[in-house]
Amino acid sequence: MIRAGVIGATGYAGAELVRLLSGHPGAEVAAVSSVSFLGKPLSEVYPAYFHLCDQICVEQGEAVEQSDVVFAALPHGLSQELAAECHAKGKVFIDLGADFRLENEADYQQWYGGSFLYPELHQIAVYALPELFREKIRGKTIIANPGCYTTAVPLALFPALKNGLIEKDGILADCKSGVTGAGRGLTRNTHFAELNEGMSPYKVAVHRHTPEMEQTLSHAAGAPVRLTFVPHLLPVNRGILATCYARLKPGVTQEQLNEAYREQYKDEYFIRLLPQGREADIKNVRCSNFCDISLHADPRTNTFVAVSAIDNMVKGAAGQAIQNMNLAFGLEETAGLKLFPPAF
Amino acid sequence: MIRAGVIGATGYAGAELVRLLSGHPGAEVAAVSSVSFLGKPLSEVYPAYFHLCDQICVEQGEAVEQSDVVFAALPHGLSQELAAECHAKGKVFIDLGADFRLENEADYQQWYGGSFLYPELHQIAVYALPELFREKIRGKTIIANPGCYTTAVPLALFPALKNGLIEKDGILADCKSGVTGAGRGLTRNTHFAELNEGMSPYKVAVHRHTPEMEQTLSHAAGAPVRLTFVPHLLPVNRGILATCYARLKPGVTQEQLNEAYREQYKDEYFIRLLPQGREADIKNVRCSNFCDISLHADPRTNTFVAVSAIDNMVKGAAGQAIQNMNLAFGLEETAGLKLFPPAF
Amino acid sequence: MIRAGVIGATGYAGAELVRLLSGHPGAEVAAVSSVSFLGKPLSEVYPAYFHLCDQICVEQGEAVEQSDVVFAALPHGLSQELAAECHAKGKVFIDLGADFRLENEADYQQWYGGSFLYPELHQIAVYALPELFREKIRGKTIIANPGCYTTAVPLALFPALKNGLIEKDGILADCKSGVTGAGRGLTRNTHFAELNEGMSPYKVAVHRHTPEMEQTLSHAAGAPVRLTFVPHLLPVNRGILATCYARLKPGVTQEQLNEAYREQYKDEYFIRLLPQGREADIKNVRCSNFCDISLHADPRTNTFVAVSAIDNMVKGAAGQAIQNMNLAFGLEETAGLKLFPPAF
Amino acid sequence: MIRAGVIGATGYAGAELVRLLSGHPGAEVAAVSSVSFLGKPLSEVYPAYFHLCDQICVEQGEAVEQSDVVFAALPHGLSQELAAECHAKGKVFIDLGADFRLENEADYQQWYGGSFLYPELHQIAVYALPELFREKIRGKTIIANPGCYTTAVPLALFPALKNGLIEKDGILADCKSGVTGAGRGLTRNTHFAELNEGMSPYKVAVHRHTPEMEQTLSHAAGAPVRLTFVPHLLPVNRGILATCYARLKPGVTQEQLNEAYREQYKDEYFIRLLPQGREADIKNVRCSNFCDISLHADPRTNTFVAVSAIDNMVKGAAGQAIQNMNLAFGLEETAGLKLFPPAF
Repeated sequence: MIRAGVIGATGYAGAELVRLLSGHPGAEVAAVSSVSFLGKPLSEVYPAYFHLCDQICVEQGEAVEQSDVVFAALPHGLSQELAAECHAKGKVFIDLGADFRLENEADYQQWYGGSFLYPELHQIAVYALPELFREKIRGKTIIANPGCYTTAVPLALFPALKNGLIEKDGILADCKSGVTGAGRGLTRNTHFAELNEGMSPYKVAVHRHTPEMEQTLSHAAGAPVRLTFVPHLLPVNRGILATCYARLKPGVTQEQLNEAYREQYKDEYFIRLLPQGREADIKNVRCSNFCDISLHADPRTNTFVAVSAIDNMVKGAAGQAIQNMNLAFGLEETAGLKLFPPAF
Repeated sequence: MIRAGVIGATGYAGAELVRLLSGHPGAEVAAVSSVSFLGKPLSEVYPAYFHLCDQICVEQGEAVEQSDVVFAALPHGLSQELAAECHAKGKVFIDLGADFRLENEADYQQWYGGSFLYPELHQIAVYALPELFREKIRGKTIIANPGCYTTAVPLALFPALKNGLIEKDGILADCKSGVTGAGRGLTRNTHFAELNEGMSPYKVAVHRHTPEMEQTLSHAAGAPVRLTFVPHLLPVNRGILATCYARLKPGVTQEQLNEAYREQYKDEYFIRLLPQGREADIKNVRCSNFCDISLHADPRTNTFVAVSAIDNMVKGAAGQAIQNMNLAFGLEETAGLKLFPPAF
Repeated sequence: MIRAGVIGATGYAGAELVRLLSGHPGAEVAAVSSVSFLGKPLSEVYPAYFHLCDQICVEQGEAVEQSDVVFAALPHGLSQELAAECHAKGKVFIDLGADFRLENEADYQQWYGGSFLYPELHQIAVYALPELFREKIRGKTIIANPGCYTTAVPLALFPALKNGLIEKDGILADCKSGVTGAGRGLTRNTHFAELNEGMSPYKVAVHRHTPEMEQTLSHAAGAPVRLTFVPHLLPVNRGILATCYARLKPGVTQEQLNEAYREQYKDEYFIRLLPQGREADIKNVRCSNFCDISLHADPRTNTFVAVSAIDNMVKGAAGQAIQNMNLAFGLEETAGLKLFPPAF
Repeated sequence: MIRAGVIGATGYAGAELVRLLSGHPGAEVAAVSSVSFLGKPLSEVYPAYFHLCDQICVEQGEAVEQSDVVFAALPHGLSQELAAECHAKGKVFIDLGADFRLENEADYQQWYGGSFLYPELHQIAVYALPELFREKIRGKTIIANPGCYTTAVPLALFPALKNGLIEKDGILADCKSGVTGAGRGLTRNTHFAELNEGMSPYKVAVHRHTPEMEQTLSHAAGAPVRLTFVPHLLPVNRGILATCYARLKPGVTQEQLNEAYREQYKDEYFIRLLPQGREADIKNVRCSNFCDISLHADPRTNTFVAVSAIDNMVKGAAGQAIQNMNLAFGLEETAGLKLFPPAF
C-alpha cells in the first residue's frame, strides 16, 4: 500500500482527500497534519468521520516522514519549502495549491506576489491535468494539481481551440462555484444568512486563476490566448459550472464540434460528453470525479457555448490529485475514483 | 381608489401583484380571477395571505367588470382576446405576458408560434420599461410589461450601447434566475430534491426572451443588435442576476462607462448604480423594485462586464406592472413601490 | 414623529428595526449606533439598504441624545447601564436583550451569571408580550421585549394552560430556528457549507430561554410550570417553528381547545389561528409580525400538540419591539406592522 | 455474484439501491424495472448515472426472472402479489414498502386500509431491523425492510425501554425529514419555491408509520407502548432527525443511559453513539448507512431526550435493504455499505 500523508487535512480539500483515500485499493492515509488542530483527531473537526478517521493531526514533518506521497492542501506560498523537503527525502509531492502551476515566474509574481524559490524544482514539476497532459505526468515526483476553475474551463474549451474551431480572442468563462471553493475559513460572504438566497459575481476579471487557464488554453491553441474570467458564488456546497463562450470560426457546425470533442475524449473515463439536448449540471457530478460537458453552437449569433460541470472538491481538487497519484505511481488511473454520483 | 383586477392571481406574478397592491395608497384589489381555483379564496392557495386576502377567485369576465385596470398574468397567447375586451370596455390593460411585447409580428410568429389577432391594438400598445421609455407610457391603455430577463439585461446594457461605448456585435448575457421564474406549475426541474444543490443552463441561446431583448438593445444602439442569451436556473426563490459581456470600443475607460450610466440613471429611484468595488447581488434587491447595477471594465481583454440584479417577481413582473399603472394613471411613479429589501 | 434610536443597529435585529421603522407612519430612525462600524454608513454593512438608509453609525450616547425611544439590540449584560441612562434622561427604553426579562434575580444569576444592577429599574420594567400582557405595557418606559423562542412557545400554550385544559407537568417544546437567530457573528455552525443540508439540536434542555418561558407559562397556569426545551438549528434564514407537547386533561376535546384559543385571541390582529387541517409553517409568516398557530389533539395518546410559527426577527424581535413602542406611546398598536408576508 | 432486481427503480429508493449495489463486492444489478419509464435507460431518468447505469427499464416479471433477490420499492399495497410470485419462484424478496411490516392485520387494515392477501407469507416474513432483530433475519426469504422514521425512532429508544430506564407511556417522537422521503412524485409541498425557507409539521399524530414504531417499541418494553409521532418536512434533500422524548424512571442517571446504549450497540458497526456534548446531525450521516445517536438526560424536568440521525434513503431504505440482503444470503453484513459520509 502506498502511504499517503495529507498536509492541511482539516481544510475542505484535505478532508476530501482523506475520504477518497479511505476507499482506495492501493493507498492508505498514513498521517494527517494540521496547524490549527494539532493533536486533535480529524473526526473532531469533521464529526462525519467519527469512527472512520479518528487519526490525530501531527506536525507536518512527522507526516512527511511517514509517507510515500505527500498531498499539500495549503494556501499558496507555503508549498515550495515543503516540496523541497519532500524532494530531498524522495517523496512524491502533489500540490493542491498554486505554487507550481504557472510556468512563467513573471505571471506568478504578478498574480500571486511571490517568486520561484527553487527554480530547479519548477523545472521538474509538471502541470497535471491528466486528460490533457497525461503522458507528462507518469512517474513525476513534483506534481502541480490544477484548481477547480482551472480544470473545468480548459476541459470545456480545449478540443475546440486545438482543432481551430473557435476564434482565439474574445473567449469568456462565466463560472459559478459552490461555496466550499471559498474554504473552511469563516468569512462574511460564506455566513449562511448572507449567502443563502443570494448570488453575485466576485473578483470580476481579476481572479488569480486567470493566468493558469490562459496557460492551458494557449497550449491548446498553440498561440497566446487571453480569457475574460468572471466567477460567481453559488448558495450550494459543491460544484463548478463553467459556461464558456467563444466565437465560432466561419462555417463551423455543431456536428464538427461534437466530433472534435468525441475524438479528444473518447477514451476518458472521467469525461462524459452529454447527448445533444441535455445541459451539464453540477448536481450530476457531485461527490464524483466526473466532468460533464455539453456543447451548444448558436448559428444565429455565431457563438459557441461549452458548459462543463465538475465537483470542485473532487475533480477540482482531491479526486484529481489522487488520479495524479495513480499516474505517478503507475497504478490504474481510475483506482479509488469510480465514484457513483448520488442521484439526489 | 383605482380598482385593480388581477387575472391569473394564483400564479406567482399574480400573487405578488396582490401583495404589492395591498400596500398601494391609491389602488386596491377589486377582484382576483383564476381558472384553477375558481370559487376558492386566494388565501387557500397562499396560506401566507390568510386574513389578508381572503377574496374569492371569480370568473375573468366578472373581474374585468369590477376593475379600472386589469393586470393579466397569463401564459402567452391568452392575452390578446382579453386585451380586446378590456379595450372595448375602457379599462386599462396591463399584460405581464409576452403577447404585446414584440413590435414585429414575424418575431412573434417565429419565437411564439402565434400571430397578432388585433393589429390595431398592437398599434396602440406600448412596451413599458419605464426607465427607458417613460414618456411613451403615460396615459396609455394597453401596456406590455417586460419580463424578468428582458428588464435586467437591457437596463444593464442600455447606456453603454446608446453612448457607443461598446461594440454592437458579440454581446452576451449569462443570466441566472430564481426558481419562481419557472412558475407555480409542478415540473421535474423545480422539484425540490432535483433542483437543490444543482445548477445548470437551459434553453441555451434559444430562449424566447431573446428577440425582446434584442428589440430594446437595438433601440439603444439605433441599429440592429443580436444577443447570445444563456439562462440558468438557480436554487433560490427570487432574483435575476444578469452578467452581460461586450467588447469595449477602443480607448473606452471605466470612468466613461460610469459617467454614461450615472447620466442615464441619475433621476431613477429604482436603479442603484453600485460604487466601484461592489458587485450586484440578487440578495440585496429581494422583495423590492430596485435594479442594482455594477460595472466592470477589463482593460486586459478589452471587455465590458455589466451586472444587474432584480427581483424577478417585483421589478421583473408585478412591481414594474404597478410602476406602469402609476404612469398610466398619472400617479406618483413610485407609489406603493418604495419597498425596503430585507437585509437577510 | 417619534424619534427612534437603534443601539446595535448592525446586528440582525437592529437592521430589521431600521427596515420596519422606515415604513412606520409615526416614527423615524433618528440615529443608529454600532461599536464595530462606528463612523460607517449602515448601508455599507447591509448593501440591501443602499440609498435607503445611508445613516452613519454614531456613538451610543449620541444616539440616545437624539431619540425619544431607544431600542437596544445588544448581547445580554450590556443593557442595564444603558437603561439607567435612558431612564435618567426621560427616554423610553426598549430592550431586545434578556437583562430585564426575568422577574426573579436568582433565575438571572443562575442562567445568565449576572445580577440586577438597578433593582428599582427592574421594579418599573415590564415584560412585554403584548398579546398576553397588553394592559401592563401601556405608558411604560422600560420595556423588556421577549425573544423569539420565548414569544413562540408561550403564545402556543397560554390558552390551554390558563383554561386548565392540559396538565402542568411534562410540557415539552421542540423548537426549530432559522439561522439569523444565531446572530451575525461568524461561527462554525453558521458557516454555509456546514449548516446547509444539516439539522441538529443544540443546548438540549439547557438553553437560557427556558426560565423566561417557564415564567410566562407559570403566569398562565397560576402555578409553577417546568418546561423541557430543545432548540434546533434550521438551514433557513428566518423563522421559529415551535412544536409544543402536553398531556390533555381527561376528557378535553379538540373543540374545547379551539374554543379556548379563539376566545383568547379573538381580537388579536397578529395571531392567526389556522383552520383544522392546516399546520403552522414558518414560510407563511416571513417578514411579517404574525404568529400562526395550529392545534392538534390526539385522543389516541391523550396528547395536545400546539404548533406556532413566527418570523424570529419580526414577531420574535424587531416587530414586537415596535408593537411595544406603539403601546408605550399610545399609538395604534399595529402601526407600521401590517406587513404582508410574501407568498414565496 | 448475487443477481439483484430492482422493482420501482426510478423512485428515489430504487435509484439509491442501484447506486449502492454498484459498489457491492458480492452483488450486481441484474435488472431494473419501472412502469413509468419502461424501455428507457435509468440514466435518462437520473443523468447522474450516465455511463454508470444505462440499463433499460424492463417489465417487472422480466426483472424477477433475471434475479436471485428482488427489491421492491413500490407504493404500499403493490408488494403482496409480487412477494407471492417471488416466493413461488424461489427468489428472496425484500420489500421496502409497508405491506409486510405490521404483525397485526388489524393494524394494517386500520392504518393502510388493506388486508393480508397471503397470510402464509406473513407467517414467514420477518421485520428486518438488523441491529434489533438480526438473528431472525438470517436465511429468510421474505423480508420487510423498515422505513426511515421507523428505523430512526426505535434505534433511539430501544435500549432505554428494554432496560426499563424510561416510562412506557408519554413517549413522543418529533421527527424532521429531508424531502426525498416524500418521493419523486411532483407535489405542491415539494415544489422548490414552496418548501424552500419553509418548515412545518404534517400528519400530526396520524402518520401511518406510527403503529410500526409502536410494534418495535412494544417488543423492547415487553408491553404495549403508544407513541405520539409528529413528522416535519425539512428543506434539505436527505436525512431523518428523530428527537425522542420520554420521562425518566426515578433516579435514572445519564451514565446509566450511556451504559445501556453502549452495551446494546457495542458491536454495531452502523451505530455511532456520540460522546457527551455532541448532538446527532443529519449532515454527518449523509450518503452513509450510519445511525448517529446522542443521549441527553435532563434531571431538572426528569426528561430523557434521545436524538438519532440517519440518511433516510440509506439506513432508512436502500442501505438497510442491502444490509438485510447480506444477512439473508450469509454475506458479511457490512458488505458494500462501508460508506464514508462526505464531510460537507
